[in-house]
Amino acid sequence: MAFTTSPTGTPLSSTPRTRLGRSKERASDDRGDLYDILDAGLICHLGVVADGGPMVVPTGYGRDGDTLYLHGSTGARSLRATEESDVCVTVTHLDGIVLARSVFHHSVNYRSAMIYGRARLVTGEEERLTGLRVLTERLAPGQWDYARLPNRKELAKTAVLALPLDEASVKIRRGGPVDEEEDYDLPVWAGVLPLVTQWGTPVPDAALREGIDVPVHIGGRR
Amino acid sequence: MAFTTSPTGTPLSSTPRTRLGRSKERASDDRGDLYDILDAGLICHLGVVADGGPMVVPTGYGRDGDTLYLHGSTGARSLRATEESDVCVTVTHLDGIVLARSVFHHSVNYRSAMIYGRARLVTGEEERLTGLRVLTERLAPGQWDYARLPNRKELAKTAVLALPLDEASVKIRRGGPVDEEEDYDLPVWAGVLPLVTQWGTPVPDAALREGIDVPVHIGGRR
Repeated sequence: MAFTTSPTGTPLSSTPRTRLGRSKERASDDRGDLYDILDAGLICHLGVVADGGPMVVPTGYGRDGDTLYLHGSTGARSLRATEESDVCVTVTHLDGIVLARSVFHHSVNYRSAMIYGRARLVTGEEERLTGLRVLTERLAPGQWDYARLPNRKELAKTAVLALPLDEASVKIRRGGPVDEEEDYDLPVWAGVLPLVTQWGTPVPDAALREGIDVPVHIGGRR
Repeated sequence: MAFTTSPTGTPLSSTPRTRLGRSKERASDDRGDLYDILDAGLICHLGVVADGGPMVVPTGYGRDGDTLYLHGSTGARSLRATEESDVCVTVTHLDGIVLARSVFHHSVNYRSAMIYGRARLVTGEEERLTGLRVLTERLAPGQWDYARLPNRKELAKTAVLALPLDEASVKIRRGGPVDEEEDYDLPVWAGVLPLVTQWGTPVPDAALREGIDVPVHIGGRR
């Protein structure tokens, strides 16, 4: 199954909630930036309004073209809440700590996307499988074609939600500190402390059958 | 200024929104677990209800005893929204991808804390400084005593919020996959792919004065 062609030409919509009030220079309305951030992430933070208050749940996601897919147990409170309110899905990459000459100008380098909208419960069997496939492939590329696929019973336990990638706010900060003019003379080190996330060595399950090597797509023989 | 002694003996309160509906075995009501998760994190995802909908913003935080501190520009929409609703602050550490023999049982190893409550705008000057200090020290330990401290003008631009660490939900998943009994015979590798976050080499600001070495607390001579 091919991925939908990404309409990178369509800018992201600007609405009162996606328009940045501050730090406008960090905003991007480039759909390509949004997709890059989503395609580099492993989990999102899903925000819903539940019983009148906010609830922020870390969860997996996947993207197929201009649709974001979420999933969860059919009984989960956060998923039930999406029937009653919009959602806000935030994906954040923290790339480094920006150390300035003054405490006030300390900052972080990051790439973040906030996506707003009403999630739709996916009912069509083909789209449900597409959603679960991109969800699996985001977290564990190659596993959809390698592990046992969901059976009827497992599919019945899983709710799949679709969120259109229409209304989004993308923020990116890169580079060194910006200090007050008079602080550049201070005898204080300034710069960026980069944060690097890497895969470790795969740890086999204690119950792994003998003779099964780590597949290349997981990290074997790389 | 000494940190308040952590009342690790007091269990976290159980309320309808912190009680886990599913995966109860992953829940912890140990205050020590909450503090460990908070003290190992760099950013949180702050959830508020703004104009009736959810908004999830990545932001810094700090902890002093049983109080969580947040800050932001006095004009920020997310901070204004905290005056009108409860907040949910979520801190998540993703420790690894759990690769099972079936797609359905894929999971992640993680430690997460969701803190609910009403944030209080801090007005006392001493507590405001405490809040900013623990916020700075969470992100950049050692910088409060090293960089130039905030002046009156900078302090006026910064709102500091305090959230009591009373109502929280802590979830921890560790270990390998749990597969269906009949799947253990499949010729499929299973285990955990660990995710490791590390500091890179400090990158000096282009405008750094000559002769200033990277201090030990930032990563020099470690």
